[in-house]
Amino acid sequence: MQAVAESLSSPHPPECIICDQKGLRALEAFADVLRLRSIPCFQAAPQVLQMLTSTVTPQGIVAVCPMLHLSLKELLALQPEVVLVANRVRDPGNLGNMVRIADASGAGGMVVCAESADLYNPKTVRSTAGSIFHLPLVVGEEAASAMEALRGAGYKIYASDAREGDILWEVRWPERIALVMGNEAWGIPEGEEMMADSRVRIPLSGKAESLNVAVAAAVILFEILRKRKKGFYG
Amino acid sequence: MQAVAESLSSPHPPECIICDQKGLRALEAFADVLRLRSIPCFQAAPQVLQMLTSTVTPQGIVAVCPMLHLSLKELLALQPEVVLVANRVRDPGNLGNMVRIADASGAGGMVVCAESADLYNPKTVRSTAGSIFHLPLVVGEEAASAMEALRGAGYKIYASDAREGDILWEVRWPERIALVMGNEAWGIPEGEEMMADSRVRIPLSGKAESLNVAVAAAVILFEILRKRKKGFYG
Repeated sequence: MQAVAESLSSPHPPECIICDQKGLRALEAFADVLRLRSIPCFQAAPQVLQMLTSTVTPQGIVAVCPMLHLSLKELLALQPEVVLVANRVRDPGNLGNMVRIADASGAGGMVVCAESADLYNPKTVRSTAGSIFHLPLVVGEEAASAMEALRGAGYKIYASDAREGDILWEVRWPERIALVMGNEAWGIPEGEEMMADSRVRIPLSGKAESLNVAVAAAVILFEILRKRKKGFYG
Repeated sequence: MQAVAESLSSPHPPECIICDQKGLRALEAFADVLRLRSIPCFQAAPQVLQMLTSTVTPQGIVAVCPMLHLSLKELLALQPEVVLVANRVRDPGNLGNMVRIADASGAGGMVVCAESADLYNPKTVRSTAGSIFHLPLVVGEEAASAMEALRGAGYKIYASDAREGDILWEVRWPERIALVMGNEAWGIPEGEEMMADSRVRIPLSGKAESLNVAVAAAVILFEILRKRKKGFYG
């Protein structure tokens, strides 16, 4: 329901809503926006909803939405200060969580490179908790050419590395930052990591060897946010 | 395999290992530690391994381990500076990820309160990525009595809150910190949140309304680590 609600306020609203009796009741709260944006609603049997969704206990409501991604050129035209780059992140839950984290941490966009999980996989979409409707997203770019285009547009490229690189808290962040996160098991391929301007490392204090890729992205992006907000917060 | 490897170096090693032909080959690298710690190995058919595990593609190796949790009194005797408290965290993946995060961020222990996911659920154990073998853990305590015991031992109790409370970066952390994270959907029950000394809030910058509970724990715990290490890092 949260994702459907988010989709209704997206610049690109759903083409239609399909719901069963239960979903119809949940939709009542949104009657005004549905009318205002001329979004048609169709009622269907619970069995139809079951077929349309992949969850075990569907919520009885489905929004049929346009695919939302931009081209890299369109993203760069928005001039986001911080861009998150997912390079071969394979788990849909991690990828969706990263969309949510990028949104929450004020990153102005995200590039989902080729060989990553599908942005439109139902598990990815659910894991974004609605942020897929807010965050400017690019899909399918090759990592190497994406990094080149970002650098050409004035971004400094940081590769997250579990073992080597500058300690997160010592980095002097520039005005335009692209943060590249690699695969869950083997990180960023070495050839592509060499293309980054710098490596950044979260210092681990216990006996754990690494962090989950989405968690690592969050720790780095919120540290970037803290530094950028330093005028406001002590 | 990573979890089995971690278990072999735990203070409480496995009681035995069960593996198939494939697992046996993976175990060869650990022959010395198995001999040294007198851990018996039994070979079984792949079908038996399949029955013993819940993964779709089992790795052919199972370590039979003792349950590892301590009593709260035992945890407090270790005098950890930072304790993470999971209060009704229901998703095994989130709970396991929080164990991994607590370990990686240098928290000295974690309390898994009653009505949380099962620490020994296979999905929880896998999500800890081996940290279940390193981090001192307490299970089954009621949240209210755990908070009371922690306060009695000199801890200041912080409740993570998505909407209210002091901004994370402005908190002056005391020497002993207990960080309470609540349920995925509804946070910490109000009565129990009132028992905390303080609320702490991660300032969200985009349109996202909240963060995943494990991600939020990571952002807060690594900020605590940064402040505690301030002597080392600028």
